[in-house]
Amino acid sequence: MLIVQKYGGSSVANTNLIYNVAKRIQKSYSQGDKLVVVLSAQGDTTDELKAKAMEITSNPSKRELDMLLSTGEQQSVALMAMALNSLGVPAVSLNAAQFGLYSTSNYGNARIKRIDTERINAELEKNNVVLIAGFQGINRYGDITTLGRGASDTTAVALAAVLHAARCEIYSDVDGIFTADPRAIGTAKKLNFISYDEMLELASLGARVLHNRCVELAKKYSVVLYVKSSLTDDEGTLVGEDSKMEKMLVSGIAIDKDVSRISVVALKDEPGIAFKLFSALAKEKISVDIILQSIGRNNTKDISFTVAKDDLDKALEVLENNRAFLGSDKFIHDNKIAKVSVVGAGMATNPGVASIMFEALYDVGVNIQMISTSEIKISVLIDEKEADLAAKAIHNKFMDNNVNLAV
Amino acid sequence: MLIVQKYGGSSVANTNLIYNVAKRIQKSYSQGDKLVVVLSAQGDTTDELKAKAMEITSNPSKRELDMLLSTGEQQSVALMAMALNSLGVPAVSLNAAQFGLYSTSNYGNARIKRIDTERINAELEKNNVVLIAGFQGINRYGDITTLGRGASDTTAVALAAVLHAARCEIYSDVDGIFTADPRAIGTAKKLNFISYDEMLELASLGARVLHNRCVELAKKYSVVLYVKSSLTDDEGTLVGEDSKMEKMLVSGIAIDKDVSRISVVALKDEPGIAFKLFSALAKEKISVDIILQSIGRNNTKDISFTVAKDDLDKALEVLENNRAFLGSDKFIHDNKIAKVSVVGAGMATNPGVASIMFEALYDVGVNIQMISTSEIKISVLIDEKEADLAAKAIHNKFMDNNVNLAV
Repeated sequence: MLIVQKYGGSSVANTNLIYNVAKRIQKSYSQGDKLVVVLSAQGDTTDELKAKAMEITSNPSKRELDMLLSTGEQQSVALMAMALNSLGVPAVSLNAAQFGLYSTSNYGNARIKRIDTERINAELEKNNVVLIAGFQGINRYGDITTLGRGASDTTAVALAAVLHAARCEIYSDVDGIFTADPRAIGTAKKLNFISYDEMLELASLGARVLHNRCVELAKKYSVVLYVKSSLTDDEGTLVGEDSKMEKMLVSGIAIDKDVSRISVVALKDEPGIAFKLFSALAKEKISVDIILQSIGRNNTKDISFTVAKDDLDKALEVLENNRAFLGSDKFIHDNKIAKVSVVGAGMATNPGVASIMFEALYDVGVNIQMISTSEIKISVLIDEKEADLAAKAIHNKFMDNNVNLAV
Repeated sequence: MLIVQKYGGSSVANTNLIYNVAKRIQKSYSQGDKLVVVLSAQGDTTDELKAKAMEITSNPSKRELDMLLSTGEQQSVALMAMALNSLGVPAVSLNAAQFGLYSTSNYGNARIKRIDTERINAELEKNNVVLIAGFQGINRYGDITTLGRGASDTTAVALAAVLHAARCEIYSDVDGIFTADPRAIGTAKKLNFISYDEMLELASLGARVLHNRCVELAKKYSVVLYVKSSLTDDEGTLVGEDSKMEKMLVSGIAIDKDVSRISVVALKDEPGIAFKLFSALAKEKISVDIILQSIGRNNTKDISFTVAKDDLDKALEVLENNRAFLGSDKFIHDNKIAKVSVVGAGMATNPGVASIMFEALYDVGVNIQMISTSEIKISVLIDEKEADLAAKAIHNKFMDNNVNLAV
């Protein structure tokens, strides 16, 4: 059985942990599985390399930053190959250039375009465990790119898809997907199953376990995805097709503190203004999340939206540069906010979820700044300081009080 | 004017030193030179990576070790590109896979087979400073190799040859080639010129400034080679074609402590025994330096030879495995020895050099274990503890006493 595994940086942070993972790989290998294993850089390596770059310049070339950062994953796979060899397991490490993971040229946040399977299959034929440097690709000039946040997971799922693997296992230091972040909310429970769609909402809402690009890809190619711990034998969480049998009202609560809100006040109330505003932001590759538009006075309107904290300065710059056609120069921003969301496939058919959530927030006196909803999620924007309190209150309301049983 | 420069690890060991080099490059660039710059890994990076590998296993796969070690140079070039960019100098970093430096598959000590110039020339056309990760190559499967000791110098000279550069400048933390190691012998003098052949002898004798592979290549392709300091404006030493005008009797003294002696005692005195002995060693890629054969008793002979310290264990293993046909199992070894050599193109026409050297050793009471000579050098094997004393005595005899003037 061909299995693609991915181990995060905390799972390979030092020699002991590398051997811990190597032994897990050995066990699987000795059962006759063929293994392709994607690794992240060890522990804080990526941050340390970034710090090195920042010591050189506060604004490093993105191409060169990718050249620098990609070395972290290359080191991980080389060390793991050595560990496997010393356990008697034949293994070979490959970087993106070696097996051919082609991406766009968007340094720092490139997208996978194509993956060659020839070299990997040749190594599998030779009974090698194939260790893949995650996070990285090469563009059509052979220059090294990195694939952005959550990229090693995405690499693993993409490999599982093109190699037609029986399953893809994503390992980290938690047992699987929880109803909320167990570090923030002690009563959070592990889920045995979550649907692609629910996971997608949770991922895009800031639950850090899986990145949404990875889940999207898994859904698109029906990759059987397991989220597991590299430290326990817990069976983890299966992420798969929506099962009609059991739809939890709320399967998870997510907190996202990486949010900034920008309000453009007294915009001209003309057709196309919103389109121009958001296409100007899109051109600079700034992702906008929640958008709220309200009628202002004197033929104007106000538009508020959220962006990732890292994008705040750039977004404000875009607005400044487009003052003229926006007809507004009043840009208010706030980066002391957080987004708290509840996700559940059962929500679509149960209109009471929003009111239960708002009640929970009211109970603990948390003020809601913005609200956004989809078929299977509700997000609220609140003060960053109140995020944990709010999430705990919501979690208690839904989970501990067995509200789910009502579905 | 196209110049290839190479900066060693100590020249780029930290951010300050990176900027020091970046400013030198900037100066050259602003004078209109086109620059291809080869870098080593920062400071102790390679040793630190090796230590990481040794923590995993005492006998790491050579392929994987190269995969690991090559990241050091990739980090250097990326950081230097960032520094140059921040000084307003356009620069691009390239690893071996990106510009195409093809080598043999002999991991850890691969040889350059071919260098593609297309990518480098394209970047030079765009007025970029081209930063090349030294020390590394790729084999025909695209797997990463490293080129062994002194490889970044060799890369630089090879690039100067294929790019038809006006000259190749090798930068380190010393001002050039000295008549002896200035750290060991304070009276050592910098040479303004040394011939390829003299440099070759010095390099192969353990003078650490330039590796002989690099000098051989420079000689073969008539590359104009400068050895300079990255910390001063000294014009350095020019390494070039032998000038007939001035032939120094002795141009340098070298100490090599990386030597082990092995003696095979009471070998069968049969034709072909020596051939078989040394071809068995060659098959394991063990380089043998000085060889001395003497007649033993009862139709036997003794053969002594020297190898690098790292190769001692392997060499002894080869001997053990070939006991039967050697007809000897008495292998004596000593790794507390050093080789001290004098080199000079004038020596060939002046038979008195050896006796002056031996007199200097006699003066300080140093016992000579083995002697080896070539047209332009004399080496003696002595006790490691006496190496510095011996070198100083020889240096004084030749340099300070103006013996050279006698030529």
